[in-house]
Amino acid sequence: MSFTHGPSADFCAALGLSIPIVQAPMAGAGGTALAKAVQSAGGLGSLPCATLSLEAIESGINDCLNRADETNAAIAAQGSRPPLNVNFFTHSAKPENPNAQQRWQQRLADEYHALSIDPQAAGNTKAASRSPFNESACELIEANPPAVVSFHFGLPDAALVKRVKAAGCQVWSSATTVTEAVWLEAHGADAIIAQGFEAGGHRGLFLDPQTGEEITDDHIGLIAHQVGTFSLLPQVVDAVQLPVIAAGGIADGRGIAAALALGASAVQIGTAFLFSQEATITPMHRQALQQGSPENTALTNVFSGKPARSVVNTLMQRVGPMSQSTPPFPTAATALAPLKTQAETENKADYSSLWSGQSAQLANQLIDRCLSAESNRIQDTDCPSATHLVNWLAADATQTLKQLARIS
Amino acid sequence: MSFTHGPSADFCAALGLSIPIVQAPMAGAGGTALAKAVQSAGGLGSLPCATLSLEAIESGINDCLNRADETNAAIAAQGSRPPLNVNFFTHSAKPENPNAQQRWQQRLADEYHALSIDPQAAGNTKAASRSPFNESACELIEANPPAVVSFHFGLPDAALVKRVKAAGCQVWSSATTVTEAVWLEAHGADAIIAQGFEAGGHRGLFLDPQTGEEITDDHIGLIAHQVGTFSLLPQVVDAVQLPVIAAGGIADGRGIAAALALGASAVQIGTAFLFSQEATITPMHRQALQQGSPENTALTNVFSGKPARSVVNTLMQRVGPMSQSTPPFPTAATALAPLKTQAETENKADYSSLWSGQSAQLANQLIDRCLSAESNRIQDTDCPSATHLVNWLAADATQTLKQLARIS
Repeated sequence: MSFTHGPSADFCAALGLSIPIVQAPMAGAGGTALAKAVQSAGGLGSLPCATLSLEAIESGINDCLNRADETNAAIAAQGSRPPLNVNFFTHSAKPENPNAQQRWQQRLADEYHALSIDPQAAGNTKAASRSPFNESACELIEANPPAVVSFHFGLPDAALVKRVKAAGCQVWSSATTVTEAVWLEAHGADAIIAQGFEAGGHRGLFLDPQTGEEITDDHIGLIAHQVGTFSLLPQVVDAVQLPVIAAGGIADGRGIAAALALGASAVQIGTAFLFSQEATITPMHRQALQQGSPENTALTNVFSGKPARSVVNTLMQRVGPMSQSTPPFPTAATALAPLKTQAETENKADYSSLWSGQSAQLANQLIDRCLSAESNRIQDTDCPSATHLVNWLAADATQTLKQLARIS
Repeated sequence: MSFTHGPSADFCAALGLSIPIVQAPMAGAGGTALAKAVQSAGGLGSLPCATLSLEAIESGINDCLNRADETNAAIAAQGSRPPLNVNFFTHSAKPENPNAQQRWQQRLADEYHALSIDPQAAGNTKAASRSPFNESACELIEANPPAVVSFHFGLPDAALVKRVKAAGCQVWSSATTVTEAVWLEAHGADAIIAQGFEAGGHRGLFLDPQTGEEITDDHIGLIAHQVGTFSLLPQVVDAVQLPVIAAGGIADGRGIAAALALGASAVQIGTAFLFSQEATITPMHRQALQQGSPENTALTNVFSGKPARSVVNTLMQRVGPMSQSTPPFPTAATALAPLKTQAETENKADYSSLWSGQSAQLANQLIDRCLSAESNRIQDTDCPSATHLVNWLAADATQTLKQLARIS
């Protein structure tokens, strides 16, 4: 693609990208290696920080912004910052709620019993925690500012948003509704990620679709109002003046072309990168993605307390996919930790989140096609690098656009 | 659009269409006038029969197939049948279940109380019934066969499918999952309507996404597995050899272009036609569509017992959107009938289904744009004919495709 026309051309020019592909930040599933592999192919690499310590965030940013790196040096020579998006959650961390934890443990009683786990010990196993963006994280950003700082679940306090922008970073956030997109524009966002229903992982949902108020309780009825990419994307494009990045269900060139048709300036791709060699997921997770069909994923709140899309597994079937019994985000993970740990030692993902969008098969098939076509040139035929993946996505999109051009 | 290349060209040629637009059959919301208006613009008109008597079906088919009609005569001269799709439901009609009705009436007790309605009288008001395709309907089709017979909720018995095909009709049905699409191809369908999560009205859902078995109970957990158009469409295209018609969230030219990018042979558009003067909806329904945002619709089972997308109203907020208490499809409507009737006499749609896809605003804005551009030429500026609407959709799609052609 040459991208000499339209909003995607402006988007790429502003960030020094050669292709309008943003690698979705996926907490726990990818780190600096993934971000750098995408950067080197001309896309925007993303560093997810929700589960990282401050030290790990700092080292990750330094690694990705390193101007000794060939790609970064070339971009710096053009006057742009290295193409890095540093991503944070912005949920309001709630105080511990022992009653809610107890209710959740009771709901899981049959599961503990099945694995012969003492429920009393459940609180002792450490689960991955998720911290919201705060003062300390903001200081790290100010010290070494990336091109983009993106947020999930709304935006942090206005004072922190102001500081991030003052550091010269673009501020992005996800909208799952038109209402959220309009709110984000009014509160200082520089671009909107329109996150359709198809997307894997956590829904960015932060405003009640009925009242427009911030969500204080992730009640399960909210997901009935969530909006598919096909419908959300053009309506967000119409509702705001900002560039809109399409997310949810995009995993091959057809999806990229369709997103551009619907008015997107760029696409954010997540699940497809879980197939890359830089992804840090378990073999069980990778296997679930390879075998999945779109209807074999569901929105579920059982892993964290907030709705997120995962490949369906035992826990989701028995307790969910949506449960009234989960404690506030992110503390549902605490009581699950011993179940997850024990099942994983037996190579079972019965209690592990298997985040996936609805288009995993599209990525799987694109990779199969490209690997068989290029097998002479690529060494690791089982698992391509994210750099290859970006190149294949771009080539596939070009092909779709050329086919479309013959119709009109 | 010239449609000289690609699957949409083949699709149009096979049916004698000049544009790959199928008007969605919408039971109760459009009849012969709507179907004929779409036919005359070169699209495929559809006659929904689920709520019609046999006499009304016969008269509707005769009206739409009338070869004295100019459009039909022109198409007949080219050797094609008039472009008509006659649509039926294929649910398994269950015996009356007094216990389930009583449980549902109890769930509605507060609603009856609020409107001072005697719950005992609730069974006496007649609600619109919905009949599945059967022997008598098949005889009507054989006597005067249209180009296409489409089904919703799967397919009728194999013997009936065979007779419809023997009458020279194409058989279509809706798939909400890849599993359903593959099943429909194996059971004789000639084209698949990929119905994404965004679509208005009833979900065509008929196989359990976990087991692949036919659904015997519309349990509410099923909707967590439903798939957005962006993800469903290309995966159905990849999974079957048949032409695939995209449905769900398509309401302007951007959507048509995006559907073609994702591999569709044609699009099925519903909600946009509810804005046309040929639609037979209430002013309240039209108003709800005009004011709607995508997140102001939800999947709900409270109106019929099966999940369907409606603009959110009082009943959905108070009792749903998804309820465990509804009786089997379509009998949930019976107990609602007195509530609906009384509220509607006060111009309130509190208990009326307000079917809508998630892209109503896209159609609303397309119509606004086109009406203001063409106001000198069009008489009824409030409510365009479906013929105009088809022309505008085609022009808008052409424009989007031209813009895309400049990118590649």
